[in-house]
Amino acid sequence: MIKKITGNRDFAEYLRGKSASFVLSVSTTKTCNIPNLTQAGIPGLIHLTPTLDAEFLCSGEVRSLKDIAKTPKGVPTPALISRAVHLLKPFKDVEIFDLGVDTKIKVDYFKMRDFALEPSESIDKGADIEAKKLYELGKEFAKDYNPEGDYVILAESVPSGTTTALATALALDYDCVGKFSSSFKNAPTNIKQETIKKALGNIKAGEKVFDKLSKVSDNMLIFNAGFVAGIAKRDLPLVLAGGTQMACVYMIANRMEEELDSKNLGLFTTKWVAEDENSDIEALLNMLGFKVNAFYADFDFSLSSHPALKLYDQGEAKEGVGAGGALVYGLLNGLSKEDITKKVEGFLG
Amino acid sequence: MIKKITGNRDFAEYLRGKSASFVLSVSTTKTCNIPNLTQAGIPGLIHLTPTLDAEFLCSGEVRSLKDIAKTPKGVPTPALISRAVHLLKPFKDVEIFDLGVDTKIKVDYFKMRDFALEPSESIDKGADIEAKKLYELGKEFAKDYNPEGDYVILAESVPSGTTTALATALALDYDCVGKFSSSFKNAPTNIKQETIKKALGNIKAGEKVFDKLSKVSDNMLIFNAGFVAGIAKRDLPLVLAGGTQMACVYMIANRMEEELDSKNLGLFTTKWVAEDENSDIEALLNMLGFKVNAFYADFDFSLSSHPALKLYDQGEAKEGVGAGGALVYGLLNGLSKEDITKKVEGFLG
Repeated sequence: MIKKITGNRDFAEYLRGKSASFVLSVSTTKTCNIPNLTQAGIPGLIHLTPTLDAEFLCSGEVRSLKDIAKTPKGVPTPALISRAVHLLKPFKDVEIFDLGVDTKIKVDYFKMRDFALEPSESIDKGADIEAKKLYELGKEFAKDYNPEGDYVILAESVPSGTTTALATALALDYDCVGKFSSSFKNAPTNIKQETIKKALGNIKAGEKVFDKLSKVSDNMLIFNAGFVAGIAKRDLPLVLAGGTQMACVYMIANRMEEELDSKNLGLFTTKWVAEDENSDIEALLNMLGFKVNAFYADFDFSLSSHPALKLYDQGEAKEGVGAGGALVYGLLNGLSKEDITKKVEGFLG
Repeated sequence: MIKKITGNRDFAEYLRGKSASFVLSVSTTKTCNIPNLTQAGIPGLIHLTPTLDAEFLCSGEVRSLKDIAKTPKGVPTPALISRAVHLLKPFKDVEIFDLGVDTKIKVDYFKMRDFALEPSESIDKGADIEAKKLYELGKEFAKDYNPEGDYVILAESVPSGTTTALATALALDYDCVGKFSSSFKNAPTNIKQETIKKALGNIKAGEKVFDKLSKVSDNMLIFNAGFVAGIAKRDLPLVLAGGTQMACVYMIANRMEEELDSKNLGLFTTKWVAEDENSDIEALLNMLGFKVNAFYADFDFSLSSHPALKLYDQGEAKEGVGAGGALVYGLLNGLSKEDITKKVEGFLG
């Protein structure tokens, strides 16, 4: 079952049966090196997360992890969910947008779009991103972008990405405190708040929007906002697969574009985000000057007794690597909760 | 399991695994306002049936029904079957051919082909259809018609459509009394016979075929006959999804065209039609000058104990909204009788 958050129900119904290109956009912000800020990865190796997620999504293997034994028994990456759906009801294509990662992704054959970007700096030191250039790059790239699927599911893997997203939305003057989610059940509010406070402190009064973004945002957010603006001019349905970070992508595009035709723009996320009591994605989407067709998958791990998966239902992890988008796609194409649960459990042994 | 009625078994085998555009052609004939002639809908609101079927097929909701509480607990629309298959093994695309309905269909995003037609008059008063123009419209439209699927499943929703179909076949001098089915188990023979008698009474001796059609037929039958004739010239498999009404579509095309290459022409229907003792679709198809590749789905509700669904197995409803075509498509693509039964039951609560 699929549930509507905002927009037009028929957007999702129309995509039923259509083939999808699943695009994982990855970038690293050095913000993720701040201790205990995120749990999206292996402590000490958090910067590897986007690379490992991309490798696992495409191949079922994590290839850039030298010592796999070090993987802690924590919350498993939501990449497991996206991969499970891909095994059960494969996407027409899986592509990677490499928007600046620490370690090269070791995958062959798959379309790997290399935009020659470096990881951005930590936002407490000013992210040092060429924001205007990056936004225009996304917009320009969207013009001729030619996916194999009937529509595009655009996912992300950016550790500490909810921190940079919240900082970004605040810098753009959205009234959004308490509305962004976290990969933690009990978010490390102090570290996060302090980081964001430092980041916003680098902004000078009267600075232009792009200059603000250069200091507090991340590559994924800015490039994808440009990509959204470019795709909106075309007749190609685009679904951002993610939670409040993807809402932030729309919030950037909303500030940059005077008008944006959102008929073909969507957002698919998880139940853990949509029903999260500590964030409010619906409120974020309602701040936009256009209507996003937003839905979530009515999927949880209530059919599983695996302790690692139970953590999702308790509010850990919630979303990432397009898990929500993969789930909605799976449910739209006839997969059942049982099918998906079993396949994810299979990865954990 | 799929069973052959007429034609070449490999036609269906070849379509296994292919993607399908499911097209619902809808029209209203005011014939349906004759009391007790049809049970295809809500008494007093029968004219709404094509609109509601289209809405439900696309979106899972009936949007043009103001007071849903009025729905009687009768035979549920076969749209439930088509929708169930679409949820389990989605069609590549769902399209609507609007051939003149009473109430506008409230669905966005889906391809809605508007041919600017009005509902036709009741056949007992002369249907008042511009038959030649409508047939040519269907034929012309078929030339450039470009579906998303590898083949086309063309369904219909026309309440009282078996009455107009029988009147049409009789007017075209087919020896078909007793061979057309009804949505009733015990068809209201008197009302139906009287209506058809009146309709045929409007035809003058020596009238041309198109002039006869103008008086006794319906928009769906005539347009689709033209569409069939147009598609037959192309390399695109077309399956008419329905029972004796769809046989009648072929019977019209058979009268109009001197030659018709039927290699790519099929018909998929239900077991309830194919094994109906009160009609004979095989005999109708054998009256044609060409061979239609006709099959039925060996599906019934023997696995269900739901009283509303049991009515199908007792001979009520039988077919409509492409139920037979959806079932054959589902069975060709790996769905089981259990899968489909459960999904249909899910709609009824």
